[in-house]
Amino acid sequence: MLKAPDHQVAGHQAREGQLGPLVDDSGRFYKPLQNNGRGSKELAFYRSFFSDPRVPHHIRRFFPRFFGTLVVEASDGSGPQSHLVMEDLVSGLDRPSVADIKIGSRTWYPHAKEDYIAKCSKKDRETTSLTLGFRVSGLQIYDEDNEAATGGFWKQSKKQVQGFTAEDVRGTLRRFASSNPSAATAATADGEEPDCAFAAVVYGGSGGILAQLLELKAWFEEQTIFHFYSASVLLLRGNGATEAARVKLVDFAHVFEGDGVIDHNFLGGLCSLIRFISEVLCGGSDGRPHPEKSSAAENGGQGVTLSGV
Amino acid sequence: MLKAPDHQVAGHQAREGQLGPLVDDSGRFYKPLQNNGRGSKELAFYRSFFSDPRVPHHIRRFFPRFFGTLVVEASDGSGPQSHLVMEDLVSGLDRPSVADIKIGSRTWYPHAKEDYIAKCSKKDRETTSLTLGFRVSGLQIYDEDNEAATGGFWKQSKKQVQGFTAEDVRGTLRRFASSNPSAATAATADGEEPDCAFAAVVYGGSGGILAQLLELKAWFEEQTIFHFYSASVLLLRGNGATEAARVKLVDFAHVFEGDGVIDHNFLGGLCSLIRFISEVLCGGSDGRPHPEKSSAAENGGQGVTLSGV
Repeated sequence: MLKAPDHQVAGHQAREGQLGPLVDDSGRFYKPLQNNGRGSKELAFYRSFFSDPRVPHHIRRFFPRFFGTLVVEASDGSGPQSHLVMEDLVSGLDRPSVADIKIGSRTWYPHAKEDYIAKCSKKDRETTSLTLGFRVSGLQIYDEDNEAATGGFWKQSKKQVQGFTAEDVRGTLRRFASSNPSAATAATADGEEPDCAFAAVVYGGSGGILAQLLELKAWFEEQTIFHFYSASVLLLRGNGATEAARVKLVDFAHVFEGDGVIDHNFLGGLCSLIRFISEVLCGGSDGRPHPEKSSAAENGGQGVTLSGV
Repeated sequence: MLKAPDHQVAGHQAREGQLGPLVDDSGRFYKPLQNNGRGSKELAFYRSFFSDPRVPHHIRRFFPRFFGTLVVEASDGSGPQSHLVMEDLVSGLDRPSVADIKIGSRTWYPHAKEDYIAKCSKKDRETTSLTLGFRVSGLQIYDEDNEAATGGFWKQSKKQVQGFTAEDVRGTLRRFASSNPSAATAATADGEEPDCAFAAVVYGGSGGILAQLLELKAWFEEQTIFHFYSASVLLLRGNGATEAARVKLVDFAHVFEGDGVIDHNFLGGLCSLIRFISEVLCGGSDGRPHPEKSSAAENGGQGVTLSGV
């Protein structure tokens, strides 16, 4: 029996007669093949990716497993339609927290049509994509202290996440890695230290989110096979510190051949996200304070003003 | 006595009554303060950069030393004008080869005026900036075998370098690190192995260009102080393998405060340049073949086609 996913945070949603993805109870995720060519592009990507001998095995685990296509009843009641069948990434996670982060300061690809470029550029400039190199495009964080008020999940609407500032992004990344999300946000607002011990479990350590992102980064510094436009990094974790946090890449409707060039747009954004997460990990990724931060502090917190700039 | 520089490869040139930079015979370079606000921006950058305690000492050597401003007779005959006085980067190099490489897939900054953004975007799309994350914006390579025909220097006009393809960029980087530039280009065209031993001296080794670029990259992964738009990496080397090759950053008329965010646009382009140079260094930066390259070879050189993309 297929149903709409409980924990989808971005993209078209299967509700009120809308076309959207479905899940089954065996851990599979059914994404309708979009008609505008994006579906066939994403299908082509999945087919080539897992059979490409140039993709190292340790990198494949960052991508949802792919099981082919299947014709099933579409969620909008329009009848049978072809769906991509892949791994349901939140399956098996207890009360999952999910952040969908679209990577790249530019979501459009060279040689796209002008109206598509204009549409994407506008959104990149209106969101944090241009300035931070990424934007939050979906979010739900489990918060047991607010079970009554929020049903346990702190969610933000598409409109809300699109309006995020750099400070909102920092708050979100702290909240995502907090044992007490409401308090984390309040503490941040008060200038208090965030929940370092818990953040260290979620982001830090050899299997934490930061280590996974650094592994991806090392691949992006070398690989010239694929360029990923408008793709997202998903950060996933279950409730409690014992469940391992996961990093996954999703949304491959705009993947192009790299032609011997690295994906500098994705890599730049990924490095920026890594830098933001290192900050939440109090003391930085290597456990030492950031040199520039401590110097600024020694300097009375005084920054340098580029007068005339 | 001030005169026009012999080895300037990009930017306005002091000739035929034009305003341009000058050099003296003691190794100083005089850059006229531009009236349109760029001059004062560049001056503000130099003033803040060298006194900023957050900039590590080993990073300062990548920037031209700065000696202040001085009013000298402008090259265009317009009379006394204020000039930035800095280190002449080619001073002391015997028959210098110079490549001026503008870093970043985007040369415009957020909050720039629309007409400036449009002008820069157009150029970024017409050159390799958009696709490679950088573009060659000036070039001279010493070539003793062609002393008679070219006066010893292989130069390309502004128009020529703006028309460079990815393959031209590869050829240029090979030629820059070749003991025999003309042959290097011919060999490349024939699909022959380039001049690996010499390239290893120029690009490789602990003091080579690649090591210097990697040091810069490590800083850009951390630093959130400055964002460099439309700045260039200069690759410099004297004639012969014994003179150490140098990497310098220049052109700071569009430097902005980082506000706690890394310069992902510059970093992405820098990583792309590093990847290109690693390729010229036969066998890759670490002396091992690139994994994806060798796998592709084992696979009969067969790439993957993203059909439908």
